[in-house]
Amino acid sequence: MRGLLFVITAPSGAGKTSLIDALLADDPQLKLSISYTTRAPRPGEANGREYHFVDGKRFLAMLEKGEFLESAEVHGNRYGTSEAVIRQALKRGDDVVLEIDWQGAQQVRRLLPCIGIFILPPAVAELERRMRARGQDSDAVIKRRLASAEEEISHAPEFDYAIINKDFEVAKQDLQAIIRVERLRKARAAAP
Amino acid sequence: MRGLLFVITAPSGAGKTSLIDALLADDPQLKLSISYTTRAPRPGEANGREYHFVDGKRFLAMLEKGEFLESAEVHGNRYGTSEAVIRQALKRGDDVVLEIDWQGAQQVRRLLPCIGIFILPPAVAELERRMRARGQDSDAVIKRRLASAEEEISHAPEFDYAIINKDFEVAKQDLQAIIRVERLRKARAAAP
Repeated sequence: MRGLLFVITAPSGAGKTSLIDALLADDPQLKLSISYTTRAPRPGEANGREYHFVDGKRFLAMLEKGEFLESAEVHGNRYGTSEAVIRQALKRGDDVVLEIDWQGAQQVRRLLPCIGIFILPPAVAELERRMRARGQDSDAVIKRRLASAEEEISHAPEFDYAIINKDFEVAKQDLQAIIRVERLRKARAAAP
Repeated sequence: MRGLLFVITAPSGAGKTSLIDALLADDPQLKLSISYTTRAPRPGEANGREYHFVDGKRFLAMLEKGEFLESAEVHGNRYGTSEAVIRQALKRGDDVVLEIDWQGAQQVRRLLPCIGIFILPPAVAELERRMRARGQDSDAVIKRRLASAEEEISHAPEFDYAIINKDFEVAKQDLQAIIRVERLRKARAAAP
């Protein structure tokens, strides 16, 4: 039976990546989509694991051939999701998680049936606290990220579900319940 | 915030009552609706716990005043759900479980927003095995119940969800996921 496509979007700092890692660890049927990017690998990142690392020329060629389901440019780097890879995974019966921003989610929604989940931070104030607690970023970077988070959050109503990551375990169980119920709906729709 | 109304329907032998008992034990926000009935209490049953036991005259008076959200006659006994009690519970914020047959579910659906869940036995053959394993009923009774189960099952498509009670724990987790996700949807709909 064809797999389900979950598009998960969240502002930076909402805890999306930790939540998705926890989901994937508990659920072997769920696969994370690996994006193509032109950004350089960071220490510890492996080609084909965090990203498919490609140069600008290769990326542009893929873009021109319409191979991306969605693509975006962030801080001068390009990111894209291969449509063929996603379609093959869904056809194999994998349930696929796509971790992209609201603009990517809009692009995907036009092309494929998918379930959109938006992860909200408890409040923008808490988001700021988390960004500062990381201690990695300057005030200017935090300000820019907060403005971008506010814009991102304004698109939450475009998604099928919105969950609040106030407590990690609760948010994880919310996500797992959504996935479980969407699988029930799928089995239901496929029943004779 | 207003509570949710879950209407749970299943053919006899699908394991509905054990599942609902397990749900209620784990979830204090979930309340089981207590029906009115004209049948006599069985040993161990208490008025107001399993049922509100009333005589035929009282039941008819309630029926004529339109006090029942749904009512049915089964083997000469009458059963009914008080509309006022359900509305008050929902207004208080309780999530209410109504354990009724498909005809009752149809009546409720016309009068109140609700989430319909149908519990299917793994197969009619398994249902027969379970009925026989109980060892309480004659062949004739089992045949009648099986015919009635088949009719009941034919109404499963009228419900929002259908789950199969093949494995008790799996079915229980399915039900819990549905309740969790419906609460997420409600919180979502109520958000500014």
